[in-house]
Amino acid sequence: MMNADRLRNPFGPTLSDRYRDIGRMLISCPDRPGIVAAVSRFLFEQGANIIHSDQHSTDPSGGTFFMRVEFQLHDLEQHGVGIEQAFAGVAEAFQMDWRLAYADRIKRLAIFVSRAEHALFELLWQRRAGDLRAEISMVISNHPDLRETVESWGIAFHHIPVDQGQKQEAEEKQLQLLADQVDAVVLARYMQILTPYLISRYPCRIINIHHSFLPAFAGAGPYVQAYERGVKLIGATAHYVTEDLDAGPIIEQDVQRVDHRHSVEDLMRIGRHIERVVLARAVTWHVEDRVLVHGNKTVVFA
Amino acid sequence: MMNADRLRNPFGPTLSDRYRDIGRMLISCPDRPGIVAAVSRFLFEQGANIIHSDQHSTDPSGGTFFMRVEFQLHDLEQHGVGIEQAFAGVAEAFQMDWRLAYADRIKRLAIFVSRAEHALFELLWQRRAGDLRAEISMVISNHPDLRETVESWGIAFHHIPVDQGQKQEAEEKQLQLLADQVDAVVLARYMQILTPYLISRYPCRIINIHHSFLPAFAGAGPYVQAYERGVKLIGATAHYVTEDLDAGPIIEQDVQRVDHRHSVEDLMRIGRHIERVVLARAVTWHVEDRVLVHGNKTVVFA
Amino acid sequence: MMNADRLRNPFGPTLSDRYRDIGRMLISCPDRPGIVAAVSRFLFEQGANIIHSDQHSTDPSGGTFFMRVEFQLHDLEQHGVGIEQAFAGVAEAFQMDWRLAYADRIKRLAIFVSRAEHALFELLWQRRAGDLRAEISMVISNHPDLRETVESWGIAFHHIPVDQGQKQEAEEKQLQLLADQVDAVVLARYMQILTPYLISRYPCRIINIHHSFLPAFAGAGPYVQAYERGVKLIGATAHYVTEDLDAGPIIEQDVQRVDHRHSVEDLMRIGRHIERVVLARAVTWHVEDRVLVHGNKTVVFA
Amino acid sequence: MMNADRLRNPFGPTLSDRYRDIGRMLISCPDRPGIVAAVSRFLFEQGANIIHSDQHSTDPSGGTFFMRVEFQLHDLEQHGVGIEQAFAGVAEAFQMDWRLAYADRIKRLAIFVSRAEHALFELLWQRRAGDLRAEISMVISNHPDLRETVESWGIAFHHIPVDQGQKQEAEEKQLQLLADQVDAVVLARYMQILTPYLISRYPCRIINIHHSFLPAFAGAGPYVQAYERGVKLIGATAHYVTEDLDAGPIIEQDVQRVDHRHSVEDLMRIGRHIERVVLARAVTWHVEDRVLVHGNKTVVFA
Repeated sequence: MMNADRLRNPFGPTLSDRYRDIGRMLISCPDRPGIVAAVSRFLFEQGANIIHSDQHSTDPSGGTFFMRVEFQLHDLEQHGVGIEQAFAGVAEAFQMDWRLAYADRIKRLAIFVSRAEHALFELLWQRRAGDLRAEISMVISNHPDLRETVESWGIAFHHIPVDQGQKQEAEEKQLQLLADQVDAVVLARYMQILTPYLISRYPCRIINIHHSFLPAFAGAGPYVQAYERGVKLIGATAHYVTEDLDAGPIIEQDVQRVDHRHSVEDLMRIGRHIERVVLARAVTWHVEDRVLVHGNKTVVFA
Repeated sequence: MMNADRLRNPFGPTLSDRYRDIGRMLISCPDRPGIVAAVSRFLFEQGANIIHSDQHSTDPSGGTFFMRVEFQLHDLEQHGVGIEQAFAGVAEAFQMDWRLAYADRIKRLAIFVSRAEHALFELLWQRRAGDLRAEISMVISNHPDLRETVESWGIAFHHIPVDQGQKQEAEEKQLQLLADQVDAVVLARYMQILTPYLISRYPCRIINIHHSFLPAFAGAGPYVQAYERGVKLIGATAHYVTEDLDAGPIIEQDVQRVDHRHSVEDLMRIGRHIERVVLARAVTWHVEDRVLVHGNKTVVFA
Repeated sequence: MMNADRLRNPFGPTLSDRYRDIGRMLISCPDRPGIVAAVSRFLFEQGANIIHSDQHSTDPSGGTFFMRVEFQLHDLEQHGVGIEQAFAGVAEAFQMDWRLAYADRIKRLAIFVSRAEHALFELLWQRRAGDLRAEISMVISNHPDLRETVESWGIAFHHIPVDQGQKQEAEEKQLQLLADQVDAVVLARYMQILTPYLISRYPCRIINIHHSFLPAFAGAGPYVQAYERGVKLIGATAHYVTEDLDAGPIIEQDVQRVDHRHSVEDLMRIGRHIERVVLARAVTWHVEDRVLVHGNKTVVFA
Repeated sequence: MMNADRLRNPFGPTLSDRYRDIGRMLISCPDRPGIVAAVSRFLFEQGANIIHSDQHSTDPSGGTFFMRVEFQLHDLEQHGVGIEQAFAGVAEAFQMDWRLAYADRIKRLAIFVSRAEHALFELLWQRRAGDLRAEISMVISNHPDLRETVESWGIAFHHIPVDQGQKQEAEEKQLQLLADQVDAVVLARYMQILTPYLISRYPCRIINIHHSFLPAFAGAGPYVQAYERGVKLIGATAHYVTEDLDAGPIIEQDVQRVDHRHSVEDLMRIGRHIERVVLARAVTWHVEDRVLVHGNKTVVFA
């Protein structure tokens, strides 16, 4: 068993203390004058001290306004319900979509994998290092291969095969495992397409990673196609999963240079590297409540 | 003569219109609860609509708070003085350093050069493309070489030699030319060290660019030293000029990869490329009022 | 007139001398043992000293072998014909496609533009700085807008409108201008599709630049589409023009990061920046005989 | 126990087969005409097929010539001694420093660590993924903290404290463990300075990683200094260890962007990330015989 205790609580009391009393208010609404004034006045009157604040407007005239305010408030946990009730009035006046996130309620993730382990590993490791501030509640796979690895980290592993024509049954089992246990699902190279039904249960809370090229290569064997076209960049895109396969809101993208000396195998290796880096960044931003979704795009207050 | 009219007014009425009525409030003060509420309420009461807002606190307890608010207000030019007077009360309550910048008052730059033209050229060109929203009022050089080039752009060129032991006289001439004509000075590979006297006249308004390496190479011939050490990155740093040579607040840095195939001459060519890119970014941020200085470092709301 | 003399001969005698006696042998052939031995022995026997040598094999068994050898040989110009005749025997034995390039025969470029000037400008400028070692023989445009700019650099400007249904006539005029005058054509944001006829006259000698995204966006207004999808990277691809529109062999690609704060206009500005950098790199590699084409991909010995 | 068998032999028979019969000839010598011809003729006569070849000359006249040739030769293992004896004549004629590396003799590494695990972890993981083609023979630490982690990977862990004034005794123990067991030593954040004695035993075979900044910050707490100076880039440098502390030949460098929002802790986290990426690249190049040292710099045929 590999330092499971440390993994379960890598942050120690220091970080827990650091996050206590930190709230994050996430708001989107039609833009109009007075929003910032109303929100900041509200927080001031509640006794909160604003630590960070980011905002963005797609267009001051008729656009959408986004805001993320991180604040400190003594005994936030006790006062949270009252604050949320009090804010409802402000929110209504401005037609806000909003939520209050409590930073010390560490988010719980389920990671879906198949056979490839690179994306899973980066998440396990960044979590262990304390860079990814989340709890990894379980790993679900349609293959048994990674059981030993996952369990050696002290994390529950569930093998749920997805047989031909039995996807619905498999997803039912997945949903039962997830129920009330996880805040978000990370598809860390999970090679199954989710049904609209499962997706609808975790809207903007399922994150996927896939390779990306310029130009894009449709169909099978994209790395072979990229090799044959002689691309000079290999990329990866992390996005929220919607019914529109691989076309949901993009959270993060990055690329790495390649050249003619790289074999198809090299491109795949470099692809794995860039995938794990990009996915880890996207998951980190998600669990720190930095991503707001607007139609089919994101506002990332990184 | 090369499109001088176009250079003088590259933006046309469209951009002028776009910038009219846009104000930028820049604030730094001791952090404490209520600042954002006070500023946003003030702007709301003045009838302003906040377009962008960035803020940063070095530490919510006892740190320094920085804020840049870009807002739109009908007939800002006419109401400006009144707004500034009204804001003085808010500012005093929070011990703010602050200023209100009018976006349509395009900043006027003097560019100091010696013989190398690459950094000057990038600025002239980005200005022409409308990417650098500034007016280039004059170019001052301790060498006559670039006169024809600069004048062909329709820009005044002043040759002020800096003879041995005559630096003070030369700087007096420079200051006379600058007087009331420029908002900031850009040292675009100007190979003279400014005296504390000149620097003190344009605090945090003189921007310099110099090459940077990991590790740093002191003394003469840094590119030769970098070549001999076999560095893998060539960098550049843009910073505000202080009396502490090359050690003023950093505005921007970037690097480019090199390897053993690059000669000293190649390193210098790559260095020129990265210098012009980094300097142009720093100047752009400066003229758009995106840089706040705090001690010996900057907060860049890019 | 802007330093036209300097532009016409930016390199001066020093560089001319430096390039004299430098040859570049470019070879591709079926891979098999003995190629390098035969080529290097040949050059040794001719009295040449190899300065750089790059090679690549797609597969040692049954693949294609590529080689670029840069060598120094006293009085190369006089001995060139003899060397080429002598090498024919080696080449035949290995079924080589090959050519000998003389480094001091500076390549002559025609640049095709429409209205956008950014890509043209970078080339003019890098040429002036001596970074692009080529002669810009002429600029051809389907619009008259850039005449003054181009002529102020002392370069011939030809306005050849491309009217509806008159493309063939326009291309005939272009070909007459190009005839025997240029080695390669650079499409620096030339907004006309070339016909297969013109392309066939300059195989692998017409270089184009276009924007690239992950994923690709088909159809009109790609920047608007990229904005609406919220991409995090803006890219550009430089490639040789083939009949297959925008799908010819890729020479170079690069990207720059963007985020939600960037407007469509910002994306276009950043796109312009990355386009000019990528195009200049591709053209530089082409004129230095660093690009070998293999089917629909390139081997770039950068 | 975590997949120790798989870790010990992550490559399987396929890769072993792939590497069998692959040789790498590494050469440096005074540059003069005929070197490539002699080497390639020699290999051809031995029946070898050149797969890759890289070469570099610091100066064709009086400089140093470097060459790395990767070739395939049937039954290389059996013929190796004969080939080496035969090549000695060629080598002598050109005053070559040279060695023949057999690709299937996977290099054995000792990793030295203290308490920080990030650099160690990346190496363990890349090795497991098959990206780092090396054997990790042992981990040596001056602290006991990482024993459980290392042993869970099935790798020997040796705790050798380095007490005040007892460094020589500690190094003797280290050298006994290393003896005949390892080809190279990786200092993966090992916080002890090695003595010249130990360094002299593994010349150009000890690789270190350290943080790098532009500009460099001497003395204690470099991240605090970097934070206070407001640097925009955090970097790392991997180099061979020489007696000249942190000033040995640089193998690889890279940087990551930071800004004012990053705390000292964030800078350290980003520093860890860039350190592990840079170290892994440097070690990979070393074990693939891609790094030649020349004075105080490297030629990396990546």
